[in-house]
Amino acid sequence: MQTPTRAKIRLCVEHPLGVGQAVPLSPEQAHYLFGVMRKGVGDAIALFNGRDGEWTSEVVEAGKKRGILACREQAAPQQMPPDLWLIFAPIKKERTDFIVEKAAELGCARILPVQTEFTNSGRIRQDRLQAHALEAAEQCLGTFVPPVDEMVPLSKLLAGWDGARRILWADESLVGAAETLAGLAPGPWAILIGPEGGFSEAEREKLRALPFVTPVSLGPRILRADTAAVAAITLWQAALGDWR
Amino acid sequence: MQTPTRAKIRLCVEHPLGVGQAVPLSPEQAHYLFGVMRKGVGDAIALFNGRDGEWTSEVVEAGKKRGILACREQAAPQQMPPDLWLIFAPIKKERTDFIVEKAAELGCARILPVQTEFTNSGRIRQDRLQAHALEAAEQCLGTFVPPVDEMVPLSKLLAGWDGARRILWADESLVGAAETLAGLAPGPWAILIGPEGGFSEAEREKLRALPFVTPVSLGPRILRADTAAVAAITLWQAALGDWR
Repeated sequence: MQTPTRAKIRLCVEHPLGVGQAVPLSPEQAHYLFGVMRKGVGDAIALFNGRDGEWTSEVVEAGKKRGILACREQAAPQQMPPDLWLIFAPIKKERTDFIVEKAAELGCARILPVQTEFTNSGRIRQDRLQAHALEAAEQCLGTFVPPVDEMVPLSKLLAGWDGARRILWADESLVGAAETLAGLAPGPWAILIGPEGGFSEAEREKLRALPFVTPVSLGPRILRADTAAVAAITLWQAALGDWR
Repeated sequence: MQTPTRAKIRLCVEHPLGVGQAVPLSPEQAHYLFGVMRKGVGDAIALFNGRDGEWTSEVVEAGKKRGILACREQAAPQQMPPDLWLIFAPIKKERTDFIVEKAAELGCARILPVQTEFTNSGRIRQDRLQAHALEAAEQCLGTFVPPVDEMVPLSKLLAGWDGARRILWADESLVGAAETLAGLAPGPWAILIGPEGGFSEAEREKLRALPFVTPVSLGPRILRADTAAVAAITLWQAALGDWR
């Protein structure tokens, strides 16, 4: 929605960033910058690493499969998301990609795919989902990339859950109910979104019994899982997060 | 997110629905029901028309390109969305489809594509977007399909605007500002979302000068246009719409 006034090309790197810091490129990054984007020595590239904010850097060495960038100045401070996790059951491929992209854009700190009884997909490509989160941060001028976990069964995740982090459960049986986020306390939270088909009755009973789980309604309409994820993150950010 | 307990297959029709009402099928609908879905005489089909709620009907005649359904009983009352329109500038194809789908799911009453100075696409397929809105309603157990207008220039839309309907402008220059929806009055509203690249300075000046336009911030992060649309509709629904 906004034309960046900072360097147009943004790269996420592992390397520390700071005044005068030299940042070596991976072969893939060198190929992308110099082969695909036709950049060369002297061009400006924006860098971030999830810790040191965004830095404007300059290409000082450019090779076919290698290159070095030199940090010049900080262009934006590090912006960390609030302490919100997203737990979701992967659905169809495009919609799963979409959920990860939107969670990264809207400011989630961690993304946890879970397998539920009605989860359609038995496995996910964690690396692909992580790449989507990274791309969302690169495109939206973010300086933080939420880690995407490997998928685990929901039952296992809940068994080892630290109750200090509360779970906001988008409970599809509450469609039209008045269970809103009003009155909830800030702090560490996770949002839980079910798969197409919802949770099983056994899962629902378990969730209802957990003291750290709060069910919430997302309005009077039935929402697809991807829509529910975006709506729930938005409401949490506005009520308890950094959109206040 | 929920397994429908009503008839699994849902069709949107033009015909009035009511006790004993016979509903003739179009050749496409007959092909879909009897050819693709292998339904036949005696099977239950859910019907809605945007006015009479959802009705459970029964197939009483099934042909290759024709068929008749008979309404048996109302399965759900008509659910109208609140008086919220979405004005948006079409972006890439998939993301435009997505915006229309989500607007229909989240409860918008009308969808208005507009051409802005930085709108990438010079034309849209109104019929394709309308079909997406219809499919979203069919899939999400909705009983209303928001009409999708033909695209018009934003300047023309604003020139003929009835000021009794206020416009909530997701102003990308307010990223991080404290301009929230708190304190806004209910009533007829429209949400305005800009294209990738935002609005031009001329457009921004014009919008700022209009008495019925209220700028709002969508948090401290830069959002893609499709994310901004979903987030803004969600916030409006929670603050002023039927999610309260």
